Amino acid sequence: MNVIGIDLGGSFVKIGILNNTELSGETEIQVEDNQSWNTLAAEIETEINTLVRKTGINQVDGIGLAFPGQVDSVNMRVLRTTKYLDAPSFDFPGWAERNWASPMVIENDARLACIGEWQFGSGDGSKNMLMVTLGTGIGSGVIMDNKIVYGRNFRAGNLIGHTILDYTAEPCQCGNKGCAESLASSWSLDQIIRKDPDYRGSKYAKSGNVDFKSVFNDYRNGKAIAERSVDYCLEIWSAAITNLVHDFDPELVVLGGGVMKSADIIMPQIEKKVLQRSWSTADEVSFRAAKLGNQASLWGSLYLLEEKQRSEACN
Amino acid sequence: MNVIGIDLGGSFVKIGILNNTELSGETEIQVEDNQSWNTLAAEIETEINTLVRKTGINQVDGIGLAFPGQVDSVNMRVLRTTKYLDAPSFDFPGWAERNWASPMVIENDARLACIGEWQFGSGDGSKNMLMVTLGTGIGSGVIMDNKIVYGRNFRAGNLIGHTILDYTAEPCQCGNKGCAESLASSWSLDQIIRKDPDYRGSKYAKSGNVDFKSVFNDYRNGKAIAERSVDYCLEIWSAAITNLVHDFDPELVVLGGGVMKSADIIMPQIEKKVLQRSWSTADEVSFRAAKLGNQASLWGSLYLLEEKQRSEACN
Repeated sequence: MNVIGIDLGGSFVKIGILNNTELSGETEIQVEDNQSWNTLAAEIETEINTLVRKTGINQVDGIGLAFPGQVDSVNMRVLRTTKYLDAPSFDFPGWAERNWASPMVIENDARLACIGEWQFGSGDGSKNMLMVTLGTGIGSGVIMDNKIVYGRNFRAGNLIGHTILDYTAEPCQCGNKGCAESLASSWSLDQIIRKDPDYRGSKYAKSGNVDFKSVFNDYRNGKAIAERSVDYCLEIWSAAITNLVHDFDPELVVLGGGVMKSADIIMPQIEKKVLQRSWSTADEVSFRAAKLGNQASLWGSLYLLEEKQRSEACN
Repeated sequence: MNVIGIDLGGSFVKIGILNNTELSGETEIQVEDNQSWNTLAAEIETEINTLVRKTGINQVDGIGLAFPGQVDSVNMRVLRTTKYLDAPSFDFPGWAERNWASPMVIENDARLACIGEWQFGSGDGSKNMLMVTLGTGIGSGVIMDNKIVYGRNFRAGNLIGHTILDYTAEPCQCGNKGCAESLASSWSLDQIIRKDPDYRGSKYAKSGNVDFKSVFNDYRNGKAIAERSVDYCLEIWSAAITNLVHDFDPELVVLGGGVMKSADIIMPQIEKKVLQRSWSTADEVSFRAAKLGNQASLWGSLYLLEEKQRSEACN
């Protein structure tokens, strides 16, 4: 099966081809702020066609799209989004059929990464799994009893970023107060650093720029401002994961996302803190780093397309 | 089908008989602090036998037990409990077989109440439902896609009382910090009242006693200390329910438990606050008061026993 995966991020679109479970090509497109989906779709078509030619595959058997928003993956529609605002009216299956005569799946990006890790990455064999993606925001996906968790409106298991950890705190971008990602994520890191007593005179104040890469670097070099900020984030992430561990009671928690480039610091701390906070014991829940990096959603698409084929063969 | 339900509370055991979906008898036993399960079981046997004689039913078709702790409802064992500490080594099915030649089901009390409301109470027809029990602690149970949610260790959907709402707050009885029920439940109400600026000189300070019944009464009479305390509790309960609504994405939230005697005050406030905080809209999620009161778990037992019969008939 030849599968093309499209991973829509905030700044880049990543496109990859799996040719019978071998990654046979990949490319990326830079995205402008406030890009429309329709404009981007045309660029993606060109990139995919070039990639298909280059890799010499004869036919596209399926297209998978990881979308950063709320997705109805049964009716293949975007339900709610703060990016690509024209996506909800777009006919995704029609687009795939017209361009590549192939079926399409579309899924929330964090949930699709979870599905990929569950089937082909760190999740192997687990029946109850939670994946958390620490990146620009904080995303999650959940598997219970060998099934993907969706809920009534396709949001279940997806909203770890908006679990309330401090019910009186400042409003999040979503309107709620004290959400996990408003307290500690790439988009809120700047505020964390600004509140630090060493902020004035720090390199962050001078450059006006702050990201997790440099904060974790400074943490490794023993800078106090970075130590306090990282410790604070680990506290928030652990509390958020505890809330989901309590709700879904998984046997496995997989951590992924860009921030996990510092997995050596993050993994042992989060494991320790979640085990301290939650009712689950070390015998009951394991913690692993994600294996598939930013190809997790491509592998998730492979699984969903195979499932689609199986269910159509049975009907 | 004649079903006997045993609802183990902290201060009382309630026993009821459903005779072909008619409540045909009920009784209760007072429980001492630190009561052992084995001693209580002997009392329960006597009470059930008396009740059976009185109601004139010929045979007991099933026994259901609502237990206030973590229960393996497949292997019929108590896994973890802070009351009735000898219960984990007790053979429940053997007990029911020996005494009444009947099958038995055992389930966490909040989950069993949820099952009862789902099948016979306020849940009718909903496929994705969350029930919250506001009582001594705060309990919950969840139905997703027409199935009872269990997780790996039978804790899934059960721990709304321990969702973290204030990650830096004082430790809960469970060891975690800032759990919902450590912030606002019957057992933490005393602390809420004590922190109030009007506490000194209040009737609560004089009597040394405080419970939700008197606090809600004083709220109705416009007492400021009661208004602040109730408002605070509604804020906490709404934040806790928001966390579970985010995780499980239900179409229906049912509220039950002793505190719901003041449902007229609680329901509209919680509905308003959860809709403000959560991503779910009024079109997506409804809020209802529980219908079955403290008989919810008896009806839940009926459902589980019927399911057991159905599944055995199919194997």
